[in-house]
Amino acid sequence: MESTNREDIINNCETKKTNREEAMQRILSLKAESFPQSERVFLTMDDGTGVPFRKISQTGSNPSVMVYDTSGVYGDSSAVLDLHRGLKPIREKWISEREVERREAFNQACSTFLNGRKKDPDEAAMIYRAKSGKRITQLAYARAGIVTPEMQYVAIRESQRVDPAEQGEFTAEKIRQEVAAGRAIIPANINHLELEPMIIGSKFLVKVNSNIGNSSMSSSVEEEVEKLVWSVRWGADTVMDLSTGRNIHETRESIIRNSPVPIGTVPLYQTLEKVGGIAENLSWEIFRDTLVEQAEQGVDYFTIHAGLLKSFIPLAARRMTGIVSRGGSIIANWCMHHNQENFLYTHFREICEICASYDVALSLGDGLRPGSCYDANDEAQFSELKVLGELTRIAWEYDVQVMIEGPGHVPMDLIKVNVEKEEEDCHCAPFYTLGPVVTDIAPGYDHFTSGIGAAMIGWYGCAMLCYVTPKEHLGLPNREDVKQGMIAYKIAAHAADVAKHHPMAIIRDHAMSKARFEFRWLDQFALALDPYTARRLYNESTPEDCRNVDHFCSMCGPKFCSMRISRRIREKYGKELDL
Amino acid sequence: MESTNREDIINNCETKKTNREEAMQRILSLKAESFPQSERVFLTMDDGTGVPFRKISQTGSNPSVMVYDTSGVYGDSSAVLDLHRGLKPIREKWISEREVERREAFNQACSTFLNGRKKDPDEAAMIYRAKSGKRITQLAYARAGIVTPEMQYVAIRESQRVDPAEQGEFTAEKIRQEVAAGRAIIPANINHLELEPMIIGSKFLVKVNSNIGNSSMSSSVEEEVEKLVWSVRWGADTVMDLSTGRNIHETRESIIRNSPVPIGTVPLYQTLEKVGGIAENLSWEIFRDTLVEQAEQGVDYFTIHAGLLKSFIPLAARRMTGIVSRGGSIIANWCMHHNQENFLYTHFREICEICASYDVALSLGDGLRPGSCYDANDEAQFSELKVLGELTRIAWEYDVQVMIEGPGHVPMDLIKVNVEKEEEDCHCAPFYTLGPVVTDIAPGYDHFTSGIGAAMIGWYGCAMLCYVTPKEHLGLPNREDVKQGMIAYKIAAHAADVAKHHPMAIIRDHAMSKARFEFRWLDQFALALDPYTARRLYNESTPEDCRNVDHFCSMCGPKFCSMRISRRIREKYGKELDL
Repeated sequence: MESTNREDIINNCETKKTNREEAMQRILSLKAESFPQSERVFLTMDDGTGVPFRKISQTGSNPSVMVYDTSGVYGDSSAVLDLHRGLKPIREKWISEREVERREAFNQACSTFLNGRKKDPDEAAMIYRAKSGKRITQLAYARAGIVTPEMQYVAIRESQRVDPAEQGEFTAEKIRQEVAAGRAIIPANINHLELEPMIIGSKFLVKVNSNIGNSSMSSSVEEEVEKLVWSVRWGADTVMDLSTGRNIHETRESIIRNSPVPIGTVPLYQTLEKVGGIAENLSWEIFRDTLVEQAEQGVDYFTIHAGLLKSFIPLAARRMTGIVSRGGSIIANWCMHHNQENFLYTHFREICEICASYDVALSLGDGLRPGSCYDANDEAQFSELKVLGELTRIAWEYDVQVMIEGPGHVPMDLIKVNVEKEEEDCHCAPFYTLGPVVTDIAPGYDHFTSGIGAAMIGWYGCAMLCYVTPKEHLGLPNREDVKQGMIAYKIAAHAADVAKHHPMAIIRDHAMSKARFEFRWLDQFALALDPYTARRLYNESTPEDCRNVDHFCSMCGPKFCSMRISRRIREKYGKELDL
Repeated sequence: MESTNREDIINNCETKKTNREEAMQRILSLKAESFPQSERVFLTMDDGTGVPFRKISQTGSNPSVMVYDTSGVYGDSSAVLDLHRGLKPIREKWISEREVERREAFNQACSTFLNGRKKDPDEAAMIYRAKSGKRITQLAYARAGIVTPEMQYVAIRESQRVDPAEQGEFTAEKIRQEVAAGRAIIPANINHLELEPMIIGSKFLVKVNSNIGNSSMSSSVEEEVEKLVWSVRWGADTVMDLSTGRNIHETRESIIRNSPVPIGTVPLYQTLEKVGGIAENLSWEIFRDTLVEQAEQGVDYFTIHAGLLKSFIPLAARRMTGIVSRGGSIIANWCMHHNQENFLYTHFREICEICASYDVALSLGDGLRPGSCYDANDEAQFSELKVLGELTRIAWEYDVQVMIEGPGHVPMDLIKVNVEKEEEDCHCAPFYTLGPVVTDIAPGYDHFTSGIGAAMIGWYGCAMLCYVTPKEHLGLPNREDVKQGMIAYKIAAHAADVAKHHPMAIIRDHAMSKARFEFRWLDQFALALDPYTARRLYNESTPEDCRNVDHFCSMCGPKFCSMRISRRIREKYGKELDL
């Protein structure tokens, strides 16, 4: 219960002001503190748009290494921030040339942002929508043989090359083909003009999603953006705003206007808040309005639990751990109460129509994902998966982009069949999984138990991994938990990329190995996924005067250093060894 | 350089005394602080010997769960410790009945321990050796159709059952068959009387090795034993003493006399110390004497780098990261300097004779394991593996038990072939790998990058995993690093056991899942691999008055708790759902 006492309110406001200022301070200090030996650089598209990378310089004559960069303007120490204005609407020129109309936003409540949404503080905020009867999704263009600027952008981003002749498997045309076939999606709402486009598909770099969201009390623009900045700094490719409680609309507005990465939501959460948290009171109409509201704001993908049919509920109710998807359990409750079929299923075509008007991608939710290794790959899970396949076909009729959400909790020996079944039942739409956790006995370490499953499923073909933090199953993650979850998942995704032979991934691995063999400690830190931790652990056990220069480390000392001996063998016997 | 200043020496001694006392204090406090809801219990063999387990009680009428226990007497809060006497020589009655002779120990330097080695402080320390011409290894007995007490012990340990009719795949007779076939080993030197026998083989629980060892200055018995106690507390199934520097013999004596788990060594390290750290001065004679010295002390397995032939060195010298095995690089250096074949290879039959006399198992070292993903599965690595297969056959001629060491650094897609090749080339001798690390870009997190590979290779059939700490590639691990490395590897091993359907592993997983669905927080902590961390993370985000009782947690709150909704569906619609 919140106090309404006047003094409390004042105190509260003051706390908020402090929180806001502190959050802004943290954002600015993160921006100033770029990764060591790193700078944000751009490769330029035909139309002049810059595609960002992080360039890691190495010492001596060793070549610099370019890596994929999700950090947006927050990774650019020279950029100027105005969180209350929002990011530069870099996609506006692309969108405005499409068959779209500009309309007043349905919800003007918090449209104070002076970016693509409004030009002047006194104006009403404007949004884009497809002209009636026109198809403006990336899938529609891809199918029509049109290469969009988003596809060109992604081609450069995945290949690190501007010239199509050098882009190998990642030319804009190949990307168009993947999108057209439904095997990849570019989540890019036409109202998310601030977005740096990215692609989700099994042929591309494995992506990682991070979840943020406040749970009840409103927090400031700065506090919301700080969570976002922290996630993208550690490599989040997309961010889901899972806010519940009050001020969901305002929170989301702060996030989207300041987000360089696609934002996903579970619209059911806001809908449930609108009916006072009573699942029985949910209705299609309120849900529909919520979709429109969010689509107009620029949400890039919606998680929709439309595959959970009423007839599957008994299958799940008999499980070891029942239904563990929040959305799934809310829907199941609604179906049982009303003795009716899931309204997300019965209204699915209308959902598709809304998504098609704004190019919101669908992330078909697995409301019946297993909540324990015991329940993995059971009838409930796979029955729903088949329905998701049906729904995929329907969405594609509307040119709506689709990905499929997956488990959850799965022992290692049952992971591969999840990918195979998903590909078969869902016609190779990209797979997006939560882990999976491969054993249930290590709460407190579920970033790791699930990171094992995530690495494997990524290698098998899963396109995006939803991160899990050490707090999973225990509580709400704090800042450090978010970082640990992200690092674990970037390792999983990168390991999958290496196993899939993605050339960009392999370059960084080899550069690190070479730096290690040559005892270039500073380069090793710079190339590391987490340079700060690598350096701290090194310093912990290395005397100050030996740091960064010695050709061995404290692990073995000079006499027992295999790399040192190995290098000496090369130098001393190079001729004999025919080197 | 060490100071020889008198005052420094006094200070040093005082520090040492304090270190010793503090170490003892930490051992005692660990012993007192058993895991929550846990006690060390025993199942009794025919001859009265107790086989240890940890019994985890659950609240209410929920059944207790027995888990494999490596902690030895240190996990028993009621036990009395005397580190200077050593543990009870529980195997003495078994060994003394074999065809062995009792002799004065070759090295009496530090044989002050009053356990099986000597009965009286004034006596010379005695050791066991096979009578001339007699074969006393577990492999010899297994081949002769004899079930040893060690096999009976292991049968109970792996099955949690005393009655062979209930032991399923883990009867003593089946264990005998696995050992006889060379597919499993029971490392159990006849001079390690304090050992609680365990088995390493692909059909059994996946085991984890932890490395300890001082690097130069001597440390006390208490400090060495503390490292051991810390490792076995977190589940180390074997411990390798990788000490270098002075006082290696004394350090090892402290460890073995107080160790309930098998102790492995790399005898080359002590040999190198004996020749002043100059690899060129190594000789077979000094090496041989070192083997005898260590075998008499009770070392349970030796890592021997006998498969690195001189002709393979050019293959490794051309690699991205050369030779990264310490033993491998020392041997390569020796071969190049003397222009001679590896003396461990040329004297391998003599090595086997020594091992056979004391039942020391051989861990055939992979001196040419890859040090980077780039070098994985190359000609150098697989050439050596073939030689290890040859050596396995030779060792088996002498009834010496063998396991094969493996990589190292291997991308996920190249892991499985390592197991297949090892099984083929090395005739299914148990595989013992270091990781493998699946990407090189995350120094500071290599317990995790390698934990992914370890889980996979364990599932594919690797029998034992050598742990890696977060400090790998950066420095020497401290206490917390050791714990984090152990936890990561226990997760990997357990995930592999679950994937391999080991019934003991699955029971614990299911118990945890059930406790989670029923919101039994205390039981979840008790069943967790690390109860302390699980509880701390839970408490961090749960208000004190809600802890341990509420039927939801801070993650979602009551309205959005899927498990709560799911349980309510069960309760409310149980009849309709036909439950």
